[in-house]
Amino acid sequence: MARLLESKKAFNAEVNQYEHNSPTLGCVMKFSVINGGSGSDEKLPVIYWLSGLTCSDRNFIEKAGAFRAAVENRVIIVCPDTSPRGVDIEGDSESWDFGKGAGFYLNATQPKWAANYKMYDYVTNELMEIIEQTVKTNGKKAIMGHSMGGHGALTIALRNPGVYTSVSAFAPICNPMQCPWGNKAFTGYLGDDQEQWKAYDATEQMKGMKAAPFDDILIDVGDKDNFLTAGQLLPENFKAACDQVGQKCSLRMQPGYDHSYFFIATFIEDHIKFHKQRLAN
Amino acid sequence: MARLLESKKAFNAEVNQYEHNSPTLGCVMKFSVINGGSGSDEKLPVIYWLSGLTCSDRNFIEKAGAFRAAVENRVIIVCPDTSPRGVDIEGDSESWDFGKGAGFYLNATQPKWAANYKMYDYVTNELMEIIEQTVKTNGKKAIMGHSMGGHGALTIALRNPGVYTSVSAFAPICNPMQCPWGNKAFTGYLGDDQEQWKAYDATEQMKGMKAAPFDDILIDVGDKDNFLTAGQLLPENFKAACDQVGQKCSLRMQPGYDHSYFFIATFIEDHIKFHKQRLAN
Repeated sequence: MARLLESKKAFNAEVNQYEHNSPTLGCVMKFSVINGGSGSDEKLPVIYWLSGLTCSDRNFIEKAGAFRAAVENRVIIVCPDTSPRGVDIEGDSESWDFGKGAGFYLNATQPKWAANYKMYDYVTNELMEIIEQTVKTNGKKAIMGHSMGGHGALTIALRNPGVYTSVSAFAPICNPMQCPWGNKAFTGYLGDDQEQWKAYDATEQMKGMKAAPFDDILIDVGDKDNFLTAGQLLPENFKAACDQVGQKCSLRMQPGYDHSYFFIATFIEDHIKFHKQRLAN
Repeated sequence: MARLLESKKAFNAEVNQYEHNSPTLGCVMKFSVINGGSGSDEKLPVIYWLSGLTCSDRNFIEKAGAFRAAVENRVIIVCPDTSPRGVDIEGDSESWDFGKGAGFYLNATQPKWAANYKMYDYVTNELMEIIEQTVKTNGKKAIMGHSMGGHGALTIALRNPGVYTSVSAFAPICNPMQCPWGNKAFTGYLGDDQEQWKAYDATEQMKGMKAAPFDDILIDVGDKDNFLTAGQLLPENFKAACDQVGQKCSLRMQPGYDHSYFFIATFIEDHIKFHKQRLAN
């Protein structure tokens, strides 16, 4: 059972933080929840939000300004942390794009990391069970995320057909095998065999699809995003893979926006509405 | 002249951070601006936002979710820092409610602090001049703030008749002479003569008014605010002083809300509209 750490109110939504013992990750994990239906007995759908590098369960809560849209669309938004916490592994704090705050939503296979760095299993299994015990849901789920969390949302949605009704992302790392962040993380967590990397690469996953798994995938990217120009995101590769499979992908290049939560705050309502429309069917 | 440090975009608003050399405070100061009319040549009114204890110029920008309302109401919001920075005075970092991050929007008279701790002069003179040089304004001004910044907004508005068309506050310290925060700050910055304190006490200022200076003063306070129950805010004292003078004060006790930015985010649109309505006249 999750333990309630804090309960706040925003736009009539309940904004709670919880912690729980995670057997999957071998540590205590925190997660935050925006409950857009607080005060009523209605069972609501859940949208999982996966955050980017360096983030905790709190960045989205404090900076995305998603409360009003959560209440208006009557959804629950769940924000897990981005890596195991409270375990100390040599090298887990040396860089901001590997180790703590950078779990990459995968199951590590390299011996040093394999015992704890299982964020894929955590998000797709353990966290879901905890959520069903903690809040009133109607069992319907969607998933979205930002940057590393956009990568997580896309790969998790594509690898778990039928579990999530919809997926969207902000500035996702779309093809991590082809970018510096992904290369570093996959080498560290998964080793040198690039065949093993494909399970965690959204573009590779999409290429392998026999049919389009979703009616649409919504992706927003700011055209002033430094990480886009640095070749870390590669949305065009994912879009090309979608085209190949016949998967509609609404890739919107947003003029003047960067990689920050100011960008996320601007378009989060669009994403929540995109998911709610599909969750309501 | 202010130097631009950073420029972001949110909801089509320009969100800029600047720094400038402040002769008033004897140090380099930063301030942040949300420009709800970016991209047009229209000259807009300015709402000054004064933050609370421990805050910098960034808390409101990152957590209040005010972008959309700034754009829809076509206003500029200016957020200064809460104390001088970059000067080191013995004792300025020992507590979170005095010294750095806790300038209390007054002009200190005690020798140790008097050279730098002049946030009253900074906000009412120097910052205003810098803003007129930095952004396109139509010269109209309003002021609002939170907690210590609510105290600042109320006292500055009351002491500068005709300068601000309107004033509002979130959970303001309404009667600092009668609360622990105010006692500590005023003793430290102003010394033991309580007659000197009245210049920076909104309730005392209101009591001294001959006529109501504003058509209305909007104040929101959460009824789950720990600092309300601890007697730090005393909005009832300010309200009583308003009643005495015939000043309308719309004091709204918001059920379930606390002292946090979740509370501010929920009601900031109301405050921006309150000001815009008056700034437009």
